[in-house]
This record gives sequence, structure tokens and C-alpha cells, in this order.
Amino acid sequence: MSPAMTVVWLNGRLLPAAEARIDPADRGFTLGDGLFETIRVSGGTARHLDRHLARLADSAALLGLPLPYGIAALAAAAGGLIAAQGRAEGVLRITLTRGTGARGVLPPADAAPTLLMTLVSAPPPAGPVEAVIAQSTRRNEHSPLSRVKSLNYLDSILARQEAAARGAGEALLLNGAGRLAESSVANLFIVREGRLLTPPVAEGALPGIRRALILERDDAGEAPVSVADLLGAEEAFLTNSLGLRPLLRVDGQAIGAGTVGMATAALLEDVAAE
Amino acid sequence: MSPAMTVVWLNGRLLPAAEARIDPADRGFTLGDGLFETIRVSGGTARHLDRHLARLADSAALLGLPLPYGIAALAAAAGGLIAAQGRAEGVLRITLTRGTGARGVLPPADAAPTLLMTLVSAPPPAGPVEAVIAQSTRRNEHSPLSRVKSLNYLDSILARQEAAARGAGEALLLNGAGRLAESSVANLFIVREGRLLTPPVAEGALPGIRRALILERDDAGEAPVSVADLLGAEEAFLTNSLGLRPLLRVDGQAIGAGTVGMATAALLEDVAAE
Repeated sequence: MSPAMTVVWLNGRLLPAAEARIDPADRGFTLGDGLFETIRVSGGTARHLDRHLARLADSAALLGLPLPYGIAALAAAAGGLIAAQGRAEGVLRITLTRGTGARGVLPPADAAPTLLMTLVSAPPPAGPVEAVIAQSTRRNEHSPLSRVKSLNYLDSILARQEAAARGAGEALLLNGAGRLAESSVANLFIVREGRLLTPPVAEGALPGIRRALILERDDAGEAPVSVADLLGAEEAFLTNSLGLRPLLRVDGQAIGAGTVGMATAALLEDVAAE
Repeated sequence: MSPAMTVVWLNGRLLPAAEARIDPADRGFTLGDGLFETIRVSGGTARHLDRHLARLADSAALLGLPLPYGIAALAAAAGGLIAAQGRAEGVLRITLTRGTGARGVLPPADAAPTLLMTLVSAPPPAGPVEAVIAQSTRRNEHSPLSRVKSLNYLDSILARQEAAARGAGEALLLNGAGRLAESSVANLFIVREGRLLTPPVAEGALPGIRRALILERDDAGEAPVSVADLLGAEEAFLTNSLGLRPLLRVDGQAIGAGTVGMATAALLEDVAAE
């Protein structure tokens, strides 16, 4: 790895990752008090960056967390990091925390947020996947945190550990009502009578950027999705900012024919051409 | 503040806080993948340290998170930090994270955990408090995270922000079923017909150390607590490792006589004499 690959952007400047220091009193570290965005970089460009930054700003407002840079400055910083690394394909992550604070959960009135951007290599293309329905935990649709990409990721970690223990590559999370919310790292879509359906945000689904793009199609919409709906679907797939994965089996049971369906295949082509 | 006051213990050694560096890739920072304990230090001694360390070990096992030091070594480290700071009264915090990891929610197989201990001054004695019942979020009794003290504290932060906005010092959190789980930073007890009752862990309550100590009494027990139960209680109070706070009013309505009741006063004396 060349030294240039490990440059990060922290609080306004580019520096080697080895010199980047998070304070042990940073509330992102002590209390998970922060947010992040994961953004696909391809052809040297951060894809849908405007949507990601808009979501970050909206989510920060929900948490009462000041965004220390304007949208244009953040976009410029992302471009600067991509240029500094000379990396055309990769994954950009923007992390925003409330910064350091004294002990206690109530945020300080004079919070000085931490803003970190990192860029790492693109993961290998994610192919079709088999999932389990997590039994270890559920997603909390009663919390506004289900609607923001916060640093509180332990439920997803637990679900993913369970999937690995059960020999599957992904975990689907139910909400408190026992309906499907999303996977550990992606939104869930099912295909029913040719329509693309995904659980509403009120069901505990993160309003994903790729989910929003798909919902702009005439043949897509939101609908609560039960386990029976999923198992009886014609096709199913998972989406996040890095791509789209056909979901072929759940708890060992085939979805549709148990192969990549026509609607999913067409969407995969769209993503590849993006 | 003397320089000695800002010594911390990080991964096996004492060092000045200003030199303590959390890696930006630490999963405690990126995903809230970790745990902590908050421990009262009085008379130069970390109180109930054995119980706190046992809970930390149990919680780490639940998350599949290796505890990188034995209980005896951790107790010695805590003692060393207290001695190094020369602070007889304070708050000791032990933070355990999964350490650094590549991008992705699945923990690395070779996790090298981060263990940080800090010691800060004791807060002023916390007196009686008025609380609101949080409307902004709820606690997730379907998640095992409700039973461990994880770094995922944003629901408590949201609830506490709401309390501040509504002019109250604390927030009580409901679970998904609409019953009371605990407060943003403490367990809830009500007094009914002279008995001390607290919501069961299955209702979304953290198994607090002071809660466990009180539950060893003959006149204490677990019971689901509805909002009506709380509002109709003779007394109510909040407990955590730092102390006990009489809960006098909830959403503007007095609990019992709206003053510190006899059972609560007796418990306050026990805590003060501890």
C-alpha cells in the first residue's frame, strides 16, 4: 500500500491516517453520538454525493447535531480526498460526531463536532446472497434512529454475527411488530406481481439512497412486508449505496425459483451502467 | 487542573490523556461496537468493582467481544489509575471496544480490543428530579442491547434532549409495548404498598448494579410498570452506580405527595453511608 492511500480528511485538513487522532473523550467513541454516510466512488466520482450530504444534514438536524461545514465545503473535501489518494474506485465514508464532551448523556451546549472522511478500496462485487431472519435482535421502529444512519450499529453487528454462525452471508431484521424492516446493511425489496415493494420507513427501514432512487420508478412502492410476503415473493433483492444483491434464499427456503429473477437482473444492469 | 488529573489507562499503560489516541478505524468509533461501565469511586476505592467487571465480562461474551485482560488485571489497573491521579472521589469509566477493523459490520476474526479507563471528578450530589416520559423514542426490549451497557447511547441522548427542551432534568423511556423500562441513565423503582418494584430486564431495563443490590432486599422485586402504575405509586426513585435520585414529578404530575418519601429517604441514607 502506498502512503498516499492512507490519507484521511479530519476536521478541515488532509493528513496521514497514522497521524489522525480521535480524542478518547469524543462522544462518537464514548456514546455512539454521531452519524455516517457510506458512498460509492467510481470513475473518480462520489456517486449521489448530493443526496448523501442532504441526508447527513437532515439526520444531523434530527439529532440536534451541528454540521460544522456547509454542503459545498463537504463536497469539495470529498473531491480533495479522492484526488489526494488518486483512487478512482472505492468507498468514501463521512463520519460526523458531536465531538468531545464531559461525562453525561446530555450534549454540551457548545459542541465542536468531529468530521472525518476516509476512502478505502472498493469491495469485490457482491453477488447473490442467502440470508437468515435474525432471531438474536430486532430493529426498533419506535426510535427515530431507525431512520438515520447513526453510529449505533450493534444490532446490525449482532444480526450479522448470527448469520455467520448459521452459515449465511446476510441477516434480515424484523421490527418489534414482527415484520421485515431491512438487512444488517441494506434495504430489502421484494417483487410481487411484477411490482418492486420495500418496507416503509415507519416500519424501521433506513431511507437508503439507492432505495429512494428505485422508489422513483413507476413500478416501485412502499408496503409492509411480512415473512410470508417475502417467502412468497417472485424475487427479492437487497440494496445499499455500494450496489444491489439478489436475495436467493431465506432461512434455507428459496425465494421464487431460487435464482436471479428478471426484474433483479434488469436492476443489476442499471447499477452496473451507473 | 493538575496534569496528574488527566492521566488515563489505555491498553495496558498509564499515559497523559492528551497523548491517548483512539484510531479513527476503531469500531467503537465507527460502529459503536463496544461496552462501558461507570463506577463510583469514593474513599479512594472503586465501589462494587467486582460486580461491574463481572457484568463487563458477561456483556462482552454476549457480543462475542474478547476481553483482553483478566478480571484481576483490570481491577489492578483501576487501582493504579486511582492512585496515579490521587483522586479519592470520582467517576471511573471502563470502555471496551472491538478495536480497529476493516470496513463492514462483521467483526474481524482477529479483533484486538481497545480498553480505556478514565477517571474524572465526582459530579455534585444529584438531588430530587422531575422527569418527562419520552415521546421522541422508545427502548427496544427485543434487542439484547437493552440488557448490556453498550456504546449505543443515542436513544438515551435523544430522550434527554427532549427532557431538557421540556424543562425537566430526566427522561423515562417506554418500551415497544408502552410500559416503562428505565430512565436515560438510571433504573426506575416505584414504591407500592411499601414494596420496591422495578421493571424486569425483559421489559428493556439494564440490569444495573445498584438495582441488583436493592433487589437483594426482602421488600424489593421485579414487576412490569405501566405509566398508570408510576403515576399512582406512593414514591418513585431512580438508581445508578453514582447514586439514587428521588423522582418527584412525571410529566408535571406529582408522584405520591410530590416530596421525598420515607422509603426513598431511608435508601438515600444507605447510599450515603456506603
